[in-house]
Amino acid sequence: MAPQPVTGSSVALAIDLGGTQLRAALVDASGSILCKLSRPTLADAGPAKLVEQIAALAGAVIGESRSRPPRAAGISSPGPIDTIAGVALGIPTLRGFHDFPLRTALAEALALPVVLENDGIAAAIGEWRFGAGRGFADLVYVTVSTGIGGGVIAGNRVLRGRRGMAAHVGHMSFMAGGEHCFCGNRGCFEAYASGSAFAARAAREAAVHPSTRLGRGGAPVSAPEVFAAAAAGDDLAARLVAEEARLLGLGFASLLHLYDPQLIIVGGGLSQQFHVLEAGIAAAMRGAAMPAFRDTPVVKAALGVDSGLLGAAALAFGNY
Amino acid sequence: MAPQPVTGSSVALAIDLGGTQLRAALVDASGSILCKLSRPTLADAGPAKLVEQIAALAGAVIGESRSRPPRAAGISSPGPIDTIAGVALGIPTLRGFHDFPLRTALAEALALPVVLENDGIAAAIGEWRFGAGRGFADLVYVTVSTGIGGGVIAGNRVLRGRRGMAAHVGHMSFMAGGEHCFCGNRGCFEAYASGSAFAARAAREAAVHPSTRLGRGGAPVSAPEVFAAAAAGDDLAARLVAEEARLLGLGFASLLHLYDPQLIIVGGGLSQQFHVLEAGIAAAMRGAAMPAFRDTPVVKAALGVDSGLLGAAALAFGNY
Repeated sequence: MAPQPVTGSSVALAIDLGGTQLRAALVDASGSILCKLSRPTLADAGPAKLVEQIAALAGAVIGESRSRPPRAAGISSPGPIDTIAGVALGIPTLRGFHDFPLRTALAEALALPVVLENDGIAAAIGEWRFGAGRGFADLVYVTVSTGIGGGVIAGNRVLRGRRGMAAHVGHMSFMAGGEHCFCGNRGCFEAYASGSAFAARAAREAAVHPSTRLGRGGAPVSAPEVFAAAAAGDDLAARLVAEEARLLGLGFASLLHLYDPQLIIVGGGLSQQFHVLEAGIAAAMRGAAMPAFRDTPVVKAALGVDSGLLGAAALAFGNY
Repeated sequence: MAPQPVTGSSVALAIDLGGTQLRAALVDASGSILCKLSRPTLADAGPAKLVEQIAALAGAVIGESRSRPPRAAGISSPGPIDTIAGVALGIPTLRGFHDFPLRTALAEALALPVVLENDGIAAAIGEWRFGAGRGFADLVYVTVSTGIGGGVIAGNRVLRGRRGMAAHVGHMSFMAGGEHCFCGNRGCFEAYASGSAFAARAAREAAVHPSTRLGRGGAPVSAPEVFAAAAAGDDLAARLVAEEARLLGLGFASLLHLYDPQLIIVGGGLSQQFHVLEAGIAAAMRGAAMPAFRDTPVVKAALGVDSGLLGAAALAFGNY
């Protein structure tokens, strides 16, 4: 028999399962984090070991907080996960997660009811309930990090689709037949505008622009280094940052036409530089959007790295 | 005071306002068309004259059917229309429709409650309620004609967004910075895969392939002619048809990732050749989609030119 919610409990267990970091927290109904722990994800250990790791971290956070037992657990996981069936269909960043019944395995290990969510959608729910999207009925959340993910709220409901895998916005076509994408396809938005694509473009350009300080001595080029070099007056870096903003804005214009949101919220690693990218994103987006869509604002996520964790908490509370 | 629904009436007035044809019908609650009339749209006459034309055609269809008065009117209109406010924001194919209060004007002229819908969404509702999408909770409808439009049903609800303008799928980016699109942007899906783009590509190719029968003697090339030539064994025409199927399939793969539907329904002029395009669409779509999405079927719309008209009827019945 599936575990039942712990009645009367006012805290939720929130798990953010990432490809590199595993994070667990106890969260109250207002979105306050009472206690939080993190560990490097055992991404190569296989599903059984990883479920054990999650249960151990959950036990540690519950023990440390000395709170009442959580009512349920919400899990943000890399996709694609069939969240209707509770089955991981094949998570590229976690070894062995092919057709794995993740919800059942976690419910057993945690002895709690479990709500599973694809990470982009979980983060969208976090921002919608507790962050930059509070009070909005229609929003698109986009995370720009190693890859590009997202989640959509439409008419005050989470847009899930057939198996809860909607809003894979990083894998809309951007340049059909173009750059290879991690997903196997070519020309995805992610292959052009993600943090990885940005860093790879910077490395390629640095190699043919001897005047830049980027990649001196053959050093690899990271996204933060490009932003730092641009801030320090490096011409090539400034052009690369402007191009990144333009590419993001062009992709966001598509999202306006596809979902007609009240706002677009940008999270993920690159959103730390949102103040630098903002004007370029807005200009490119307005330039590419049809007139009726041009007044839609783009804002920075309010919850930083906790969007997904707080979305997982909202899911555990049934607040979505 | 706004008109109230005619209680006890079991018929709805459905209007399909197109850029070239204006169609009006009386429809019962099961989606049967009792009477239908059409006229060339007075697209250049301005809003006042066009509203008069709509009212006159509605009067004619009501008079001809000798049915009881309709309970309400549903209108499918070219977008973008803010269907929440009932205001046409700027319809490119109809002169003078900029910030025009279309719902109020029609409600006065028809003396009926009026439900307005962007045409792609109206057609999606028609197929969902009475056509190929019956019984599905999550579907994407795409119309491929002069342009490309669409509508999305998600979780048994119409995806509308902030102002009812979601699912402008023809204006998602397909080849950023590429071909000019009718909307003013570059590289939209519509600029590559619409019937107009298909015919334009055929004309360009015919000009440099003397062996083809297409465009002989400098004649303009239409989409139906390309299909006819392909069926008659013309090599270039066959390649053009295969390329059109491939482009549609690539765009549809994006729609899978964006909306995670149970199926994609194809309507519009080019869907008359769906049997010719189907295999190529499916192959390209499967090739570009992430594995978890590849089993999603693509089917032909069941209602032909009446998808929008029957969607308008469903709206008038509140059946959505």
